Amino acid sequence: MNPAYRLSDFVALFGGRVLGDADTQISQIATLAHATSGQIAFLANAKYRKQLDASQASALILSEADADASTLPRIVCANPYSYFAKLSAHLNPLPACVPGIHPSAVIGRNTKISPQAEIAALVMIGDGVSIGAGSVVMAGCVIDAHASIGEHTRLYPRVTIYHHCVVGSRVILHAGAVIGADGFGIAMEEGRWLKIPQIGRAVIGDDVEIGANTTIDRGALEDTVIEEGVKMDNQIQIAHNVRVGAHTAIAGCVGIAGSTTIGQYCRIGGSAGILGHLQIADHVEIASFTLVGKSISEAGSYAGIYPFSKSDEWRSNAVHVRHLDSLVKRVKKLEKEIESIKGEKS
Amino acid sequence: MNPAYRLSDFVALFGGRVLGDADTQISQIATLAHATSGQIAFLANAKYRKQLDASQASALILSEADADASTLPRIVCANPYSYFAKLSAHLNPLPACVPGIHPSAVIGRNTKISPQAEIAALVMIGDGVSIGAGSVVMAGCVIDAHASIGEHTRLYPRVTIYHHCVVGSRVILHAGAVIGADGFGIAMEEGRWLKIPQIGRAVIGDDVEIGANTTIDRGALEDTVIEEGVKMDNQIQIAHNVRVGAHTAIAGCVGIAGSTTIGQYCRIGGSAGILGHLQIADHVEIASFTLVGKSISEAGSYAGIYPFSKSDEWRSNAVHVRHLDSLVKRVKKLEKEIESIKGEKS
Amino acid sequence: MNPAYRLSDFVALFGGRVLGDADTQISQIATLAHATSGQIAFLANAKYRKQLDASQASALILSEADADASTLPRIVCANPYSYFAKLSAHLNPLPACVPGIHPSAVIGRNTKISPQAEIAALVMIGDGVSIGAGSVVMAGCVIDAHASIGEHTRLYPRVTIYHHCVVGSRVILHAGAVIGADGFGIAMEEGRWLKIPQIGRAVIGDDVEIGANTTIDRGALEDTVIEEGVKMDNQIQIAHNVRVGAHTAIAGCVGIAGSTTIGQYCRIGGSAGILGHLQIADHVEIASFTLVGKSISEAGSYAGIYPFSKSDEWRSNAVHVRHLDSLVKRVKKLEKEIESIKGEKS
Repeated sequence: MNPAYRLSDFVALFGGRVLGDADTQISQIATLAHATSGQIAFLANAKYRKQLDASQASALILSEADADASTLPRIVCANPYSYFAKLSAHLNPLPACVPGIHPSAVIGRNTKISPQAEIAALVMIGDGVSIGAGSVVMAGCVIDAHASIGEHTRLYPRVTIYHHCVVGSRVILHAGAVIGADGFGIAMEEGRWLKIPQIGRAVIGDDVEIGANTTIDRGALEDTVIEEGVKMDNQIQIAHNVRVGAHTAIAGCVGIAGSTTIGQYCRIGGSAGILGHLQIADHVEIASFTLVGKSISEAGSYAGIYPFSKSDEWRSNAVHVRHLDSLVKRVKKLEKEIESIKGEKS
Repeated sequence: MNPAYRLSDFVALFGGRVLGDADTQISQIATLAHATSGQIAFLANAKYRKQLDASQASALILSEADADASTLPRIVCANPYSYFAKLSAHLNPLPACVPGIHPSAVIGRNTKISPQAEIAALVMIGDGVSIGAGSVVMAGCVIDAHASIGEHTRLYPRVTIYHHCVVGSRVILHAGAVIGADGFGIAMEEGRWLKIPQIGRAVIGDDVEIGANTTIDRGALEDTVIEEGVKMDNQIQIAHNVRVGAHTAIAGCVGIAGSTTIGQYCRIGGSAGILGHLQIADHVEIASFTLVGKSISEAGSYAGIYPFSKSDEWRSNAVHVRHLDSLVKRVKKLEKEIESIKGEKS
Repeated sequence: MNPAYRLSDFVALFGGRVLGDADTQISQIATLAHATSGQIAFLANAKYRKQLDASQASALILSEADADASTLPRIVCANPYSYFAKLSAHLNPLPACVPGIHPSAVIGRNTKISPQAEIAALVMIGDGVSIGAGSVVMAGCVIDAHASIGEHTRLYPRVTIYHHCVVGSRVILHAGAVIGADGFGIAMEEGRWLKIPQIGRAVIGDDVEIGANTTIDRGALEDTVIEEGVKMDNQIQIAHNVRVGAHTAIAGCVGIAGSTTIGQYCRIGGSAGILGHLQIADHVEIASFTLVGKSISEAGSYAGIYPFSKSDEWRSNAVHVRHLDSLVKRVKKLEKEIESIKGEKS
């Protein structure tokens, strides 16, 4: 059970103003539809406005435009969604770091582990690893030799960091993420693949979050770089020598091929793919399921989703994609014939 | 080596009737093409009927329609494929649960671990976790604080369950699966992403199976729910607040975005994607590689696969997709011109 | 810091000839753009030729055709890219195997672990497992009962090998890979899915490399087989009873459905998918993001990528894919009408 705060406490912390009883006690946040007594709900999307009247919330977070849309005690602010984010983080902090090394952890030689860091059970930390104050390495993680981790970073269970990789401060890595596995570098010679050693690192900037089972390969000769503030969902694959610009957000299951550079503040939809050796400008949005096959030099929204339909209809339509070239030629021929018929008549 | 059973034993257990020698001894199941003495094969797909004559199996499982398609000793039943499933499960049971906690496991405080549960080597179990009788937690799993696991559930090695998540009874979770990592919730404010705490849980119903490296995120405010009997293959990504209806089957590499609800008894093909905030009815089939971009309210089969071809052909056809709108306009213009020519003549 | 070699040392090991000072000392390899003193760079792609003049490398690897493109000390050879691969492997060897079993590892009964193998911290090895000389099992791996691993194979941290699976010699498995989880086999009976036991194995040939979080399922009745020399990137899903032919290379995020056979020396691009029960010939190349929905009997290059564009344009074009069949019918009607008009006139 969370401690309770008054609306006036929130306003003191995060701004905005209270309408109604500023002493209303709040201990948790919830949706309009499911909030109960002691909970605060928020309206950030007009399509939920119809839920305002029936809401059992004790208080609301509303935009200036919606300030009078309810008579419940309420905080009025510029951006209810980010206000909700901050208020929820205040009510639901991560578990505190409990400094110390669990006796079942296995620690290499010449490590620099802050006495203010928490190393949980069954963790393996290699030689020469450094871990900063306030960082938490949860159970079952493996941090290989000479990797370094900043301050106030959290590794959820079973994260792997390969040797020499760098993880910044205030980073969150979710379970099963693999940072710095070898990039996919091979050369064919006389019918056999030769492995190309991957001697670059993976370097993860400050304030990055990386989802469960996401993989960020190390670079072939230089580094793979995830700049500060990047947010990545689960099961993303980032190949060697990719650079992802600061504050870019990438949804689940995206694959980015080798040596591609993504700009800052991009947003990439789920299951999208980006081929290798491309340059994507800042502020580019890519729709889900879109394959980006060439560089994008201009900010904006791009898509390559194709329609689905009932299987019967789909079969009768999709088959023609195989014959578009001949269809275009048939149309061209018709145009010429019409021109010729019209010419004869004039 | 499995113990041997007589055909009459199987019929006593699973129904059907024997034609030929009911004392034929069987210790394993195999395909028609590879079965040898002591093995039983099955015919569930007409395209393998031609393999009947050459099969070295000691016995067969056949449908009523195929009852006389061979003279080998045989079990005749209504559904040879599900009969095969049951007979194989009888011949190939999972290793028995060996109750007890391996001394290398690390167990938190105030846990409720059934004395009839098996906790293998190098497992970490957090505070307040409960695990029911007959459940097996294999090596390297991490079950974080206050999670609960029902009875006769099996976690293969290196599964992670995040705090407070719920896993039902008779569930199978394969290696590398991550249950309850944070959903992908972020809010932009002044050029930086704020993290939205994910305070819902992931709740996995009874009789669910989840494949290797599949990820099921916890909910943002309410729960992500996988209902009973759902079967999921490997490397599937289920985002926060998704609900998957009972007995739905999902093939590998599928991604389902946040807050989407999938009905019961759906079948979703490999690498398909479903966008967020959609409703998919019961008994919907989605083809592999299809992106579902809007809700589906009617049962049936849906597809959005596009053809592949030799690269040269593909290039000459696919390029026209970029110009379909102008092609349609050209056809419309031609239609008008023809009408006008025909009009002049009449 | 690597030890330094002279150019003449490399030529003695790997062939080629030196132009310029054969005593030039080299301790590392780098790109033309970033090489510094003591480093050797290579030119394997014409688009980087313009970087030759400004390169600070101490020496170069050049093709015969480019032998005189620089005056720096240089090795001239037939294939600079594979020469680079071999030279880099020489300069950057994997860490040596340090034979022995870490005291925190948990070892089952009746294992056959070579005294020349290295078993790192917090590894679990099941009953009856065999591991050959020179193999390294890094921290947190789980090798279940009766699996076998050849010689000089390396398992990076947190790899899982299920029971009875076979991994060859000189194999590399990256972190999070899961070898031999159950294939996705289910049979519907009376509204419930029955699990079909997966009693085949996963068999990984010699000289295979498998990327991080890739999953190779065990077979249903017979084995899933990855032949020698296959190279796989991260997050690939190989379903039960697939066979991947020798020396085939598969990029990240590919999914291959059950019982499909892939030939030798194929190259499969990232995020491609191949449906089940198909036969793919040797020497087939599949483009990224392509769904292969039928067998391919002829070597060659195949694609099924569809264009992306600015979202507005995309919307106006893609919508017509839903109506291609009616568009084709309209063109056919126009063709008939034109014929009829032309007929009337002649």
